Order: sequence, then C-alpha cells, then structure tokens
Amino acid sequence: MNAYWRACNYLSVGMIYLKDNPLLRRPLRAQDVKHRLLGHWGASPALSFVWVHMNRMIVKDDLDVIFVAGPGHGAPGVLGPSYLEGTYSEIYADKSEDEEGMQRFFKQFSFPGHIGSHVTPETPGSIHEGGELGYSLSHAYGMAFDNPDLIVACVVGDGEAETGPLATAWHSNKFVNPIRDGAVLPILNLNGYKIANPTILARISREELEALFVGYGYKPYFVEGSDPAEMHQKMADTLERAIQDIRTAQRTARQSNVASRPRWPMIVLRSPKGWTGPKELDGHKLEGTWRSHQVPFAAVRENPSHLQALETWMRSYKPEELFDAAGRLVPELRALPPKGPRRMSANPHANGGVLRKPLKLPDFRAYGVEVAAHGTRLYENTKPLGEFLRDVMRNNPTIFRVFGPDETASNRLQAIYEVSKKVWMADMLPEDADGGELSRDGRVMEMLSEHTLLGWLEGYLLTGRHGLFHTYEAFAHVVDSMFNQHAKWLDISKNKVDWRAPVASENILLSSTVWRQDHNGFSHQDPGFIDLVSNKGASVTRIYLPPDANTLLTIADRCLRSTDCINVIVADKQKHLQFTSMDEAVVHCEKGLGIWRRASTDDGVEPDVVLACCGDVATQEALAAASILRERVPDLKLRFVNVVDLFKLLPSSIHPAGSAERDIAGLFTTDRPIIFNFHGYPWLVHKLTYRFESHENLHVHGYREKGNINTPLELAILNSTSRFDLVIDVIDRVPKLQSKAAHLKDEMKNAIIDNVRYAHVHGEDRAEITNWTWPD
Amino acid sequence: MNAYWRACNYLSVGMIYLKDNPLLRRPLRAQDVKHRLLGHWGASPALSFVWVHMNRMIVKDDLDVIFVAGPGHGAPGVLGPSYLEGTYSEIYADKSEDEEGMQRFFKQFSFPGHIGSHVTPETPGSIHEGGELGYSLSHAYGMAFDNPDLIVACVVGDGEAETGPLATAWHSNKFVNPIRDGAVLPILNLNGYKIANPTILARISREELEALFVGYGYKPYFVEGSDPAEMHQKMADTLERAIQDIRTAQRTARQSNVASRPRWPMIVLRSPKGWTGPKELDGHKLEGTWRSHQVPFAAVRENPSHLQALETWMRSYKPEELFDAAGRLVPELRALPPKGPRRMSANPHANGGVLRKPLKLPDFRAYGVEVAAHGTRLYENTKPLGEFLRDVMRNNPTIFRVFGPDETASNRLQAIYEVSKKVWMADMLPEDADGGELSRDGRVMEMLSEHTLLGWLEGYLLTGRHGLFHTYEAFAHVVDSMFNQHAKWLDISKNKVDWRAPVASENILLSSTVWRQDHNGFSHQDPGFIDLVSNKGASVTRIYLPPDANTLLTIADRCLRSTDCINVIVADKQKHLQFTSMDEAVVHCEKGLGIWRRASTDDGVEPDVVLACCGDVATQEALAAASILRERVPDLKLRFVNVVDLFKLLPSSIHPAGSAERDIAGLFTTDRPIIFNFHGYPWLVHKLTYRFESHENLHVHGYREKGNINTPLELAILNSTSRFDLVIDVIDRVPKLQSKAAHLKDEMKNAIIDNVRYAHVHGEDRAEITNWTWPD
Repeated sequence: MNAYWRACNYLSVGMIYLKDNPLLRRPLRAQDVKHRLLGHWGASPALSFVWVHMNRMIVKDDLDVIFVAGPGHGAPGVLGPSYLEGTYSEIYADKSEDEEGMQRFFKQFSFPGHIGSHVTPETPGSIHEGGELGYSLSHAYGMAFDNPDLIVACVVGDGEAETGPLATAWHSNKFVNPIRDGAVLPILNLNGYKIANPTILARISREELEALFVGYGYKPYFVEGSDPAEMHQKMADTLERAIQDIRTAQRTARQSNVASRPRWPMIVLRSPKGWTGPKELDGHKLEGTWRSHQVPFAAVRENPSHLQALETWMRSYKPEELFDAAGRLVPELRALPPKGPRRMSANPHANGGVLRKPLKLPDFRAYGVEVAAHGTRLYENTKPLGEFLRDVMRNNPTIFRVFGPDETASNRLQAIYEVSKKVWMADMLPEDADGGELSRDGRVMEMLSEHTLLGWLEGYLLTGRHGLFHTYEAFAHVVDSMFNQHAKWLDISKNKVDWRAPVASENILLSSTVWRQDHNGFSHQDPGFIDLVSNKGASVTRIYLPPDANTLLTIADRCLRSTDCINVIVADKQKHLQFTSMDEAVVHCEKGLGIWRRASTDDGVEPDVVLACCGDVATQEALAAASILRERVPDLKLRFVNVVDLFKLLPSSIHPAGSAERDIAGLFTTDRPIIFNFHGYPWLVHKLTYRFESHENLHVHGYREKGNINTPLELAILNSTSRFDLVIDVIDRVPKLQSKAAHLKDEMKNAIIDNVRYAHVHGEDRAEITNWTWPD
Repeated sequence: MNAYWRACNYLSVGMIYLKDNPLLRRPLRAQDVKHRLLGHWGASPALSFVWVHMNRMIVKDDLDVIFVAGPGHGAPGVLGPSYLEGTYSEIYADKSEDEEGMQRFFKQFSFPGHIGSHVTPETPGSIHEGGELGYSLSHAYGMAFDNPDLIVACVVGDGEAETGPLATAWHSNKFVNPIRDGAVLPILNLNGYKIANPTILARISREELEALFVGYGYKPYFVEGSDPAEMHQKMADTLERAIQDIRTAQRTARQSNVASRPRWPMIVLRSPKGWTGPKELDGHKLEGTWRSHQVPFAAVRENPSHLQALETWMRSYKPEELFDAAGRLVPELRALPPKGPRRMSANPHANGGVLRKPLKLPDFRAYGVEVAAHGTRLYENTKPLGEFLRDVMRNNPTIFRVFGPDETASNRLQAIYEVSKKVWMADMLPEDADGGELSRDGRVMEMLSEHTLLGWLEGYLLTGRHGLFHTYEAFAHVVDSMFNQHAKWLDISKNKVDWRAPVASENILLSSTVWRQDHNGFSHQDPGFIDLVSNKGASVTRIYLPPDANTLLTIADRCLRSTDCINVIVADKQKHLQFTSMDEAVVHCEKGLGIWRRASTDDGVEPDVVLACCGDVATQEALAAASILRERVPDLKLRFVNVVDLFKLLPSSIHPAGSAERDIAGLFTTDRPIIFNFHGYPWLVHKLTYRFESHENLHVHGYREKGNINTPLELAILNSTSRFDLVIDVIDRVPKLQSKAAHLKDEMKNAIIDNVRYAHVHGEDRAEITNWTWPD
C-alpha cells in the first residue's frame, strides 16, 4: 500500500513539474521541466493517502464509495489514483498506461488548452468542483441522501473549514436517516496551512478540537503523525472502526426500522502539508509549512541545485520499482485497487447522469386553476404548484426532494406535506405533533442555510436525482457564488466533456418577491438574482416569470423535464389575479412571449403603442393600465405583450432560447413606442434587447431601488411601475394622446397622490386596488 | 427590573397590534387595532430581557456597552427600551413620552410610509440591520476591535445560528487581543423555533451544545427556564460572572502586557419563544412554539374572543402601574436605566460617524511609479498601493485595518507587514517566525471567510473607523448579499436618517481578476460583482477600474477620504505596463474618463473611429491595437478613450457621478463607430450607456464566459478582447479601411491562430506579447 501511495505521489510531482522524461529514465534536465510551474502540491499527498486507504476498505468489504475532494486544489492527489486505476486511460485514450501516455498525462496538467490545476469536470470520479471552497460537505450529504448503500468519503481541508458554508454543513447529520440514506464519512485533513497562513483548526487545543466535533454531533477519530509506516497502520485501523460504526448504525436502524441519529464517525487526519516532499531547501522549512501549498520551489529551470533537489525528491519514490519497462504500473500494485465500477474513479454515482431516471410526472394540467372569466379570480400562484409537487413526490418517492429555508409553507407549497413531511433527525418534542410537519422519513429539506440546501441539491442532482430549491428572491444572492460555480460546472460538462451523461436541471423558485414586502421592507427587496443568471452560459441557463398559476404550472413541468440547465422561476406566493386558462397557458408558455389579444385593442393591425410586461405583479399593473386606457381612450390601438421566458428577448444568434429578429419586430413593431413593465431592475431588459431595431423605442419600468415599508401599490408608485404611471407614460409617448388625454393624465397624477395618502392613513391599499378585476 | 421588562413587553405588543388606545385607558375595541398585523413577537421579549439586564450591569459597573440584535426581526424588543430610555423621543420629537407620543410610536411600527418590522437604520442604538440573518456576530467583533473599553452585547438567534456566516463567525475570538481590543459577549437565545421549524441547536443534547461552544473556544454559561422571577435571578448572576470573566482577562493581559487568548464567556439563554405571551389559544400552544414567531393570533378585528385575549394579554403587564397619568414611565422605573451616552440606545459607538476622525493620509503621489517613457515598464499595479497602505497604517495605527482572505501577500500588498503583521491569537509555532508575518498585535486581518472579514469591516466602519477589504474578483460573489445589505443600510442612513453622521466608506479592492487565471481557470473567472454594484443606489456606490499603478494610487486616496459609500476598485495584481505618470494619473482620475492623446491619431479633429477601454488588461490590449493601427494604417484618425470611473458612462441625471450628455457626445462623437474594450461582461456597458445618442455605434468587447486553462493572450482571444480582435473590429467598422486593410485583417487572423498554437506548445505566451511596449 505504501508503494501504491508512492506511485500516487510520484505522479503528483510529475504533473506539477514535468513535460518530458516522465519515468526519469535519464537524468533530469532543465528542458524536461515545464516553463510555468502551476499547481498545488500541499494537499495532494493526503488526498491520495485517503484514496489508497479507502481502496483497501472497498476491496475488503465490497463497499460502494465515492470520493469528494474538498481541498480540490490538490487535483494531482485525485488525478494520480484515477490514472493508476486505469480509468483515466479508458476515458482519455491518449493518456495511455505507458511512458508516452504518462508524458502526456504530466504535460496536460495545468497547461494552456488542457486541464486545470483544480479538480474540474474533466476529472473522472469527481462531481465536486475544486475551485471555490466551502461546499464539499453539503455536496457529500446531498449525494448520500436516498442512496442507502453508498458511502461518501469527503475530505475537508482545514482552510475550507473556515468558510461559513462549510462551518454549518457539519450539521447536515441532523437530516440523515440511517434507514434509507447512505452515509458521509468526513475526513478533516488538518495539514495546518492555507496559502500563506496557518489554519484556525490546526492552532486550537486538542480539547477544543475534539469538543467542536462532538458538539457538531460526530464521534471524532484522530490519525496524527508524519511517519508513513505508522500513519498507514493508524489510518487502516481507524478506517476499519469508522466503517464499522457506520454499518452498525445502519444495521441497527434498518433491522429495527427505528430511525434515530447515531453519533456518526468522522476522522481528523493531521498530516504535514506537502507530506513526503523535501523537508527544507535553502534554509527554509518546506514540508509541513505554507511554503508547500503550491509549488514548493520554482526556479528549477534556472537553478541547478533546485533541479537536483527535484530529481532527488522524485527518485525518493523509487519509480523504477513502481512502473515496468513500458511505463505501466507493476502487476503487484495493479492488483490492489478495486475493479470496474467499484473504483472510485469509475463509480457511476460520480457520473450521475448514467443513473438518472426521468421523473414520473402527473399531468400538470390537472392542477390548473379554473379561469372562466379572465382576471376576476384571486389565487395564490404557488399553491397549485404545491399540489403538483405533492404528486411528483408521490410518484417518485426516492428520487425527488424539495429544499427551502424554513419557508415551504410560507411559500404556499404546503400541500407537499400530505405526502412527505420535513425530515428531522434531531430531537422531537410532543408539541411537534400539532402542525410541526416533522418526520424521520420526510423528504422536504428545511434548514436556515441556503448554502447547505443548495449544496445538498447539487449533490443530489449530480448523483442522478431530481429536485427543486425555493427561496426568498432577495436572499437568493446568498448563494450567488454557488450558482456561478454550478453553472460553470454544467457549461463545461455539457459542452466539453463527452463522457458525462446529462443530469437533471437545478430548478430554483424565487418566491416572496420584491413587490410584496409590505412589512419586511427595503432589506427584502432585490430582484437582481436574475441579472446574475443572465451573465452565465446561454446553454445552461433559463429564466421564467410566469404571470399566474397556470403558466407557473406549465413552466414547472417543463423545468422538471429538462437536463443540464439551471432554471430560475420567479413567482410570488401572494394572491394574484388569474389571467390565463390552462389551454392558453400552455400555448403562451410554448411561445415564451406573445400578444394577449383580449387585453389588446389593436385588432391585429399596426398599434399606436405596445404595452409589454414580464412578471406577475408587473403584468397585473399593466393589465390595469390597459383597462383604464380601453375605457377612457377607446380609439387608442394598444397591443398587449406578455413575456414568460425572459431569454426570448435575446436574439437567437446569442441564446438558444432567443427569438428571431423578425419575430421581435413583428411583435414589438419597429417604430411604435414600447412601454415595458418589468419585474426586476429595468436595465436588465435593456441589456437583453439592445441589439433589436426597436430598442430605441423601448421604455422600461421596473424596480429602481426605491422602497421601505409600503403597501403594494405605493411600492409600485415609488418605482413608477403602477398602472397610473404606465397610463401616464403611454399618454406621453403617443403623439395623438398628448392633448386629447391631458385630463386623464391629471387624473392619474391625482390617483397617485390619493392612493398614497390612503395607504398612509389606513395602512393598506383600497380594496378596489388589490381586488381589481379585468373586464372580461 | 421585572416591572421595567413588563413595560418593554407591553410596548412590544402595542407596536404589533395597536393604532390607538395605547394605554388601554378604555376597553379595547376592534377599531383600536391595526388593519394589517405585521411584526415578530417571538424574539422580542428575550431581546428586551437581555437589554434590561445589560442596563443593570452598565449602571452598576459604569460599563460602555452597545447592543447587537441578531434576531433583528424582533425590533419591538429593541424599540421598546429605546423609547423608555427617552432616546426615541429625543430623536423623533413627535414620538414623545406621553399618551399621544406612544400612540404614534405604536402606529408607525410596520405601517406603510413609516418604520420597518426589523431593526433598521432608523433605530437608535443599532448599527446592525435586522432583515437578513447571519452577520450579527462578525459585525459585533468588528465593533469591538480597537475599542478597548467597549463591550458588545450580541444576541444571536438560534435560527440565525444555522447560517454559514454565523457558524464560522464564532471563530472570531481567535482574532481578539485583550490588551487593545474590546470584548464581545455573545448571548445565544435558544427560543427553539424559526418561522415554521424547530432550530437545530435547540434540539441537540445539552452535552453536544456545551461541547460545541467549548470547541468554538468559549466558556458557555446556561440560563434556562421560563419563570420570570427565577430567570431574572439566574441572568443577573450569570451576567455578573461573564462581565467579571471579561474584565479579568483584560486586566491580566493589560497589566502583564502579554496577550493571550482567554476562554471568553458566552451565554446560552434558553427561553420560550414569545415569552410572557398567551400560553395557548383555540387549543393550540402559542408561547414556546413557532406559532409565536410573528403575530401569535391575527383575527383580532373580526373575532371578539381574540380581541378579548389580546386585551387580557396586554393588561397582564399592568400598564397602569408602569405609566403615569400623562402616559410617561413612572419615576421609579425611569431611575433604572443608564443615563446619557451610557444608554445603549444613545451610545455614540452606535452612531459611529460622530466618533469618526479623518485618516491622516500621506501624499499618495510619493508612492507613484516613475513613468519616463509611457508603456515601457512592467510593474505590479497593486504593489505601490501596498506601500501607500503601509504608511496609512503607520499614521493611523488604531483606526485603520486591512481585511483579506489569506491573500494580502498574493495580492502584492505585503509592504503592509513592515508596519503591521497579521493578528493571530490562536496557537503560535516556532516556524511562524520564518516569514509567517503573524503577531498578537497586528492589524491585518486574514481568515478564509469572506463573510467574516466583510462583517468585521462593516462593524469597524459603522463604529467610526476606516478600512479596506481585498479579495479575489470571482469570489466577491460570496458576499453579494452582504454587499446588498450594506448598500441598503447606507442608502437609508444617508438619505433618510438625518441624525446618523457619515461613516467612512467601505472600500473593496477586487484583485486576481478574470484575465489572469492561467491555472485557476474557468471557476475563477467572473467579473460580475460590478454588475451587482450597478443595481444599487447611485448615491452610495462607485466603481473604479484604474489601468495602472499611478491611477490606482490616485483612486485609492480618493476612496479613503470618502464617506457613506461603497467603493469598488478592480485592479489586477500581476505585472502590467505603466502608462500614466503621476501628474497625468491625477488629471485623468479627476475627470474619470478622457482622451489619451499620446495613443490617439485624430489630432483633435473628428476621428474615423473611437477606441475606448476600461480596465487594466483591456487597456493594454487596446493600446496594443492602437499601436498596430498607427503603424500599419497611418492615415486612420483614431481617438483613444480610457474610462476609470465606470459611472461616468451614466447620464448625470441618473447618477451623481455621471456625465453630461454633451460631454459624452464630445468624447465619443455621435456618429463614429466606437470599439469599447471592457474588463467585465460587455452587457454592463450597454446597460450603462443605452441612453446616449451614440449608443447605436457602440460595439463592446468583454468577458463572454469563455475560458479554461489559458494563457493571458489566449483568454483574450477566446473572448474577442485581444489586440488582434480589436484591430479586426476597427477594420470592419471603418468604411474606408475595408478594402485598404484587408491584408492587415488577414494578418491579424493569422496572428490569432499562431499565438494560440504557440501557447499550446510552449505553455506560455510569446515574450513580445506580454512584454509588449508602447512606442513612446
């Protein structure tokens, strides 16, 4: 086993330094070394160490294990084993198991046009991006849910452990049911240093460290030292015990069918940073310090003594004992790792798309709201969605979960609880029975950490399952960076890595939106998450703003069927008027944007003005404005356009979901004023539409960062998105109205003043404002 | 004391429910009750409980204490005491200490056009926004740094405690030096429930809970129960001990002048949610459950028995004993709280602007890079900034700190260490002496948690000090939501709350930018933080992209002088060509954008084309393109424009830092093609400029989410921002070049192919590409 580990470490050093002479068949020359030395040695040996020891247990107990490399900057420590197990060569034929393949394998590492120095989507066996730190543990738990036989070995770096997302992810153990879920074995690698600093957890007392993990609910085992022989023995013993703890807990729960929360094991592996590397050079300590974090010494091409140090270091692993004449691992070592899909580098869970089964979806049309008369019925848009999701859950009990921070009921999705409660493995109290909706075997996931929830969902999806995350619109920004990383992961996986099978899309429902924050106020008003989404790769992002319940159902059905994408749906939870029948919703969503004839007065001819809208509240105000105009200026030719699929505003040359320039011109005209009432920041619409011929006629109303404690109408007024503001803007933009409708404009201004005054006296909007109906 | 607490609770209930009859001088009627009941009762009583007990200690020991309400949704629990202490009436005269004032005080709460239901900037004594959860503890520590006599009493909610940012902020105690810093006393309020769920920390064993806080490095005290009399006794005893622990630790360290890390005290206050509220109603338990989270029962106007329950509840506090005939607190109770600035509601630290002293800034010109010949010298742009910051620190040793996640040296700011090391109160090892740059009394703050760092900085600024946060550009998104909240805090404070004095601006330096991620690759490429910034209030945001070292110094000086703003500076740490002398930099930054004559060939007349740029790498490529064009198409009239202050692209009608339409037309012309090379996502420039007449001529190059492991030039080529792409675009857009320069266009295409090929073979760009110089 130590020889196998030596081979891993040899490969790690080779990847960082060499572009030629991979087996040191001749003395090392400067020209064998890469021009630019880029990569992280520090974490690599410990990653391989854990890998090699997990291999032993997999073979011994026929375990099903996947590996998560939290210190993913140490990619060499993961790439090495996957090459030695043959997986790498199976996938990338030119990186064959011989000298020439090894040379290519070394050279490609962190080399322009090739693979990164972190664990990336190109890495077999990995479904955890190694670039940004903080999410390894929540990912690992997401992988383990509903995978009863799986063990996820999750190495957590002591640098990463300082991040907030990681610090709270330890509590994920309060959501693992030993009967139906797999297990996570966290291995905290305390190598002591980050890029330039010691780590906190390595510099507190043993008493505090142990207490911390007991406090998090674990049984910590300590494997500490630097002598390889001793450390192999300790690690082997400890892993035996940890796996036994896991199996015992699972067996007890499964045999008794009583799920409780065991003290799950975790391992603290305290090993030197850059373990087995040179102890020191030029009077500076290397092994065991931050100097080993990246490339321990870099002037190898210029400084002969450094070149010599590198050669000595590499030869200390005795490559001649490890690889045969052709450059292939010797047979004794080849016999050690698991075979086929038991290899962690080839475990199908780590290419979850191959395990993915489509959801059995009920017909979403059956959950629709009856819309006999358009715009006369108030209904919570998200409520029918809850009923639909309830039956999705019923049909797919072990491959679908819903995630949200403490707000499933608040977001009106509570019908789900009829089929599945919230899972809760911490203590229960008698009063929980009264509406607590908690259960040991629920699959609704609620914790007050958006980071943990989204991490779980990503782990769940990447292992081939399905899910939905819903959260407050404003606080989706908490997970902006996670969104970015997942989008980038999907972009590379989908477009560059052939062997990765498509995974289910990440569906994000933003509810409790900016326009309905009557008492939460300014701090809860931020519709900018979709701005962020619009910056990411077109092939992996979609944004939908369904205006009512039936369009929301239609979009939700589409999202649950899609793959390799992040679908963001913005839909408020409060009561809204219902505009589209189910049949109309299906047609409208299919197009993504279109004319609403019933609200238009242009009779299909060239209109005087286009009134467009996107978003539930924005649509309601636009409809109210159209209604006022229809009544008061009956000869105005108004075209009413609603947008559901935001990227339909982009040209199809830029975005696969975009529109042809011709279609946009047909809808919006090329020369008539367009008044656009938008849910979000108005500039986003300009950003998407600036290429269109009609862009200079476009006047967008949206959230302008104005608000505090306001009634819905007052908030709209502050941001000029109210019906009154829209009517005024139409009058201002349509020449023929300017004198004719001067009186109406005054009336609108008075209405603004009156309604704000009313709200300030009565604390709410006039009933006719919120319960306003569209004359059908 | 209990009577005083009863008064607090009475006011809390009154705020949530009543708009009239505040003292219950007549039986409660439905019309006394607000139409919409919005607010959080659940956390309020415990907040007031802590407040009242802190008051006792302040009076007894003449302490200097400020209060942080982590469960800031429970604003009534903070507003009540501030009204009773007279502060509220001093600031808001119409909320006087009499019946009429109390009626207004009740009605305004969570009422349209008035104050929010969370702790907001309008709340005296608070500098912590109560809307978004997660940042109370890092804020509290930031307030305590360099305030040796201050104690920050920080109540942490058990809901908030589940968030990642809070979970890691407990480790802030490894950065507190008891000699020169104040103390934070965290009080975890374990009331058991979030909006609809129990909390994790309330549902683990006492053993685990205690171990967790020991593990975090604290000495936990437990105050548990529900009987007020007993709880008052326990809390008083415990607070005595906790304050004594703090004072002993500080005295020991200060007398011996040896700083070590004591086991700081913290308190676990386990009290019922909605404490002292109705025990139950209609067969449901209220007190002590999630049903008390917001309004415990809401049908008060419709249901007479609920109205009766409310009246009984309010009368249980015996208002007639608490307030005199005029409606003022009775004299015995008025005697209890501290006086003047010792009141937590009136402590000057909680209006830190009044304590703020301007920084003593050295002359930034003295740190400039000598630019004898323009564009011939390579230099790390951030290095002179480090030298400037070193002397800022030297001149202002106790009111300035620099914060960054493990990357101060990596970002080339290491000169700071000559004056101040990184503070480290965890264990030290002998090898730290060799370049570790750690010290007990440093003021450079490094921890691998952007959340904690920014939280510290915000706390530090809001108590009247100064600072700078620097981080990886891509991972600034980790703190997007914190940025949003601070911008909103400043927006309200600056524009709506007269009595708040201006605080120093939050300065954020984004380094390690998208264009120099040679081995980090795709996961580290995201220039979108500035997109987020552009959505926030114009009066509190600025974005600067200085192209070289001297402009960076000029901008940094400006930022360190500014107040009530968030300044974002984007500047890469790698070596770049230096273009502007210090005198030129000062003039250029003063204008914010302008023509670079030396790079232009239009001789001040109407040009054929405008080549514009913004950002260091973008400017370098644009200059290279200008150089190629000058040499190869000498009769082309090219105008070269550089933008430093991004909001100069906005019209001044929209943004106070914007430009007059006339000036923009003068610079960019109204009819010539503008090729704009931008640092970030190109759409941001379109978003800012769409209102300008010249917008339809604008063609923006920028990051298009294309990249992996690439040399700098290859990355530019992938995103069409390279010199070659710019030359091609100029040729395509200038009619007179289209036939004439066809050959040059071919050459550029070949250069693209050649250079990518070179990079893939050699692993780096050709020397002349990176060391390219501008012919002066």
